[in-house]
Amino acid sequence: MSFSATVLTLYPEMFPGALGLSLAGRALEASTWSLEAIQIRGFATDRHRTVDDTPAGGGAGMVMRADVLASAIDYASPAGDPRPRLLMSPRGKPLTQARVRELAAGPGAVIVCGRFEGVDQRVIEARGLEEVSVGDFILSGGEPAALVLLDAVVRLLPGVMGNAVSGDEESFENGLLEHPHYTRPQEFEGRQIPEVLTSGNHKKIAAWRRAESEKLTKERRPDLLAAHPLVK
Amino acid sequence: MSFSATVLTLYPEMFPGALGLSLAGRALEASTWSLEAIQIRGFATDRHRTVDDTPAGGGAGMVMRADVLASAIDYASPAGDPRPRLLMSPRGKPLTQARVRELAAGPGAVIVCGRFEGVDQRVIEARGLEEVSVGDFILSGGEPAALVLLDAVVRLLPGVMGNAVSGDEESFENGLLEHPHYTRPQEFEGRQIPEVLTSGNHKKIAAWRRAESEKLTKERRPDLLAAHPLVK
Repeated sequence: MSFSATVLTLYPEMFPGALGLSLAGRALEASTWSLEAIQIRGFATDRHRTVDDTPAGGGAGMVMRADVLASAIDYASPAGDPRPRLLMSPRGKPLTQARVRELAAGPGAVIVCGRFEGVDQRVIEARGLEEVSVGDFILSGGEPAALVLLDAVVRLLPGVMGNAVSGDEESFENGLLEHPHYTRPQEFEGRQIPEVLTSGNHKKIAAWRRAESEKLTKERRPDLLAAHPLVK
Repeated sequence: MSFSATVLTLYPEMFPGALGLSLAGRALEASTWSLEAIQIRGFATDRHRTVDDTPAGGGAGMVMRADVLASAIDYASPAGDPRPRLLMSPRGKPLTQARVRELAAGPGAVIVCGRFEGVDQRVIEARGLEEVSVGDFILSGGEPAALVLLDAVVRLLPGVMGNAVSGDEESFENGLLEHPHYTRPQEFEGRQIPEVLTSGNHKKIAAWRRAESEKLTKERRPDLLAAHPLVK
């Protein structure tokens, strides 16, 4: 059973986009995952195919209608669909690598991409949408966030990454930012690769990397360090 | 002078991608901003066009070479280029709406998309790359993150959003998550629009929205609330 992604959007032509290339694209061709993009506008009921209306209580922008979006969700994800229903939204819980791993271990995801000022709160509640945020900034819509979420998930699907070890050692997989990397040439514009890395002493190399990781995390992300179980 | 974005990537065909449609796409056509995607591989010097090598000190994955990437950066962003040079990386400083606003007010951005295990630390230092993260998760490369960053920036460029007010009231612009939205129909599956929103009392509506914003932020993002100047 491959990972099944369904995206509900006003811009289905944004998909697969970047996900049609590289790792994710090859995995799509190999049917390691599937991707369907559904046009929400197809579920509008008036002849203008209206999907939004002005906010109750006034204010700027437009709000996506509960009834139209609910119809689209019910089509894409009928009762009994085991996949979580996500709504990409800056109001959501910040996406973490732990949540990405959970999603990758599951059957797939139904992803609603908001546009306009927001989505009618009643459809969020009635259809149990889990609001997910990819960061503390505002996008023109949920689509770029959905591309990011799916890219993060797909690379963890079985067989997608060439080297499974690689995934484990990266930033956040151990709760710390990753140590600096170096490769040939030995000298670049007068800058050398740190001596310890060419010493051949694996114990010293591991200790250096760990110390650099902790130092970097302390400088840039004290919030992560505070939550880390093993570093004080 | 329009906002000038140059992306350095191993997958130039991922651009403009989603940025070629909707708000960002119309702004691109209107020359409100420009986008150039440069193939890093074009700056490799061997006949295999190698851009990566094994990590010094051992370990999984491959590291992007300092010399090849430096040549690409020097071509895209010669000395005197006033644009900041960003490296999309999970080790970076988390992107915020404040940084998005700064970027949108500037001349543009040179955006390096890493791939593989990472980028040689020496080119990060030698070319003054600012590491920027879009969240605490791992992507297959910097490209989806660059799409997100540019989408966030482009929507703030003058003339891009139809309604300038809209941008000001959204999540993070005031340091709180946004209140729930409602629109017609008045009843959806037995759920009504909250009465206050149809009362016509603008003072009460504003107070209700503010209270809902604070409540939601408290529930989902106590970290934001702790940093908020006006809410205790």
